[in-house]
Formats: sequence, C-alpha cells, structure tokens
Amino acid sequence: MESNKVTFRQALEKDLDYIVQMLADDVLGSTRERYEQPLPESYLNAFKSIESDPNNELVVACYGDEIVGVQQITFTPHLTRQGGWRATIEGVRIARAARGKGIGSKLIEYAVQRSKERGCHIVQLTTDKKRAEALHFYEQLGFKASHEGLKLHL
Amino acid sequence: MESNKVTFRQALEKDLDYIVQMLADDVLGSTRERYEQPLPESYLNAFKSIESDPNNELVVACYGDEIVGVQQITFTPHLTRQGGWRATIEGVRIARAARGKGIGSKLIEYAVQRSKERGCHIVQLTTDKKRAEALHFYEQLGFKASHEGLKLHL
Repeated sequence: MESNKVTFRQALEKDLDYIVQMLADDVLGSTRERYEQPLPESYLNAFKSIESDPNNELVVACYGDEIVGVQQITFTPHLTRQGGWRATIEGVRIARAARGKGIGSKLIEYAVQRSKERGCHIVQLTTDKKRAEALHFYEQLGFKASHEGLKLHL
Repeated sequence: MESNKVTFRQALEKDLDYIVQMLADDVLGSTRERYEQPLPESYLNAFKSIESDPNNELVVACYGDEIVGVQQITFTPHLTRQGGWRATIEGVRIARAARGKGIGSKLIEYAVQRSKERGCHIVQLTTDKKRAEALHFYEQLGFKASHEGLKLHL
C-alpha cells in the first residue's frame, strides 16, 4: 500500500457503517463507541447533521475503492486572535490493515490543505493524554501541544 | 458587584469595540489581539460570521447596562462518542474591574446551561498551558484536563 496513492473524498451515507467500525476498532474507541447492527440511530443523525452543515466535512481516505481512514474537519469563525477562521480536526482513524504506512500523515496533510483553502489561520485538535503515540505523531507534523484540552460530560 | 445579578445575552455589533478591548486586556491577549481605532476589519468580519451562524453564539455577561464578560460558544455535531453534539467554549474574558467576583463561574455555568438546551453531551475547551489559574478554575467547575490541546499556525 503506497500512501501517495491514497485519495480523499467526502464520506457518503453508505460509508457510515464502515466508518463506525473504524472508530470502534481503537483502544479508546472500543469503550466509547457502539458498533452493532442495526447501527445506533445517533450515528446516522450525527452524519446527517455533519453532511448538511457547510462548516463540517467528514472525509474518508481511500485506496482504490477501499476506505482506509476517516477524519472530521470543522471550520469555525472566532473573534480571538484578531478574528478569522480555525479548523478543528476530530475522530481521526486509520483502518487496522492500513496502519503504519504513512496514511495518517497524508490524512492530516489533506486537512491542512483544506484549512488553507478555507482561509483558516489555525488548525487545532485535542488528543487524549492516554494516546502517547498520537501526541508524537502530531508534533512531528508541526503541531504544538501548547494547550490543555478540558472536557465536561453532561 | 453581586455575581448573581449578572445577566447574559447575545453580543450586538455595537458591543464589538468593548469586547475586543476585553480580549486584548489579558496577559496573552495583549500580544495576540490588536485593539486600535478603527478596529481591524478582521474582527468585524468574524463577528458577522458568528452572528449569522446558528451554531455559534457570542455571549456577553452584563451587570446592569455594563458589559463585564464575554465568551463564544460553538455547537458541533460529531460522529465520535456515538454521535451527538458538543459545545466548545472559546475566548472567555472578564472585564478587569469585574474580576475575582465569581462572574467567570456564572459565565461558564451559562455556557453549560445553553449546551444542555442544545442537547450537547460534552462541553469542551482548550486553555493555554501558560494560564495556570485558568486550569484550576475550570477543574473546580468539573472539567477534566484529559486531553492535550494542539495548535498548528498556518
């Protein structure tokens, strides 16, 4: 599998089942997600909200016809840092069989390219502190872990 | 100044000058923001983008007619964690004369309330690691610093 042959496109509803499978096939995702048949309706509702929002993109990485990765990119206008737009990356996953081949880097590079096309001045994301490898991965791509990422579950 | 007399409302264009002044009157904001007359156009453009987006709210805290605080709340649908919406808080500032009176807590409590009204299951934010007091403040309100917050400037 050559990472420079990977292509990117918007996810379609028919991809949703496999996307959720990828999200769940992960050390943290396995406890957070619920991949079962039929797929919990909450996933379809979220997919439709993302699809209909011009400031949200659910992107799949493809190798030929096969989906090998996924990420969500959100574009948000902010008043801070002299106004302007930021991109936020969330839910990055690479299919198990496609890991360790540089596809993750291509996926993030694609997000950075889309962020530039959208006129963003910052790309940001949070990663769970339990994911030591992920932090290293993002730092190698130029991200700085300058912030604490805080969550409050309602 | 009694924090339980503080009210909250959507920011109006006429508030923008004072809001930017608050953003800049901050140890980190003083280098990041540009408060000058006329106000840099990038702030007005961001304000208009926020105002016209149903998933973004710029909220001011008021004490009588006086603005004493500001925050932006963004509502985003996500596929991860079984779908659903999250709220992200950004650009929290309390006017210098109103600090240390519990208004910051009221502001965040308001964001949590709005997040519940919007059906969000997580409220999240990132705070610069240089802001040691801010981390403590959010932790006291129940937030967990479970994530690294990474930024890439384009």
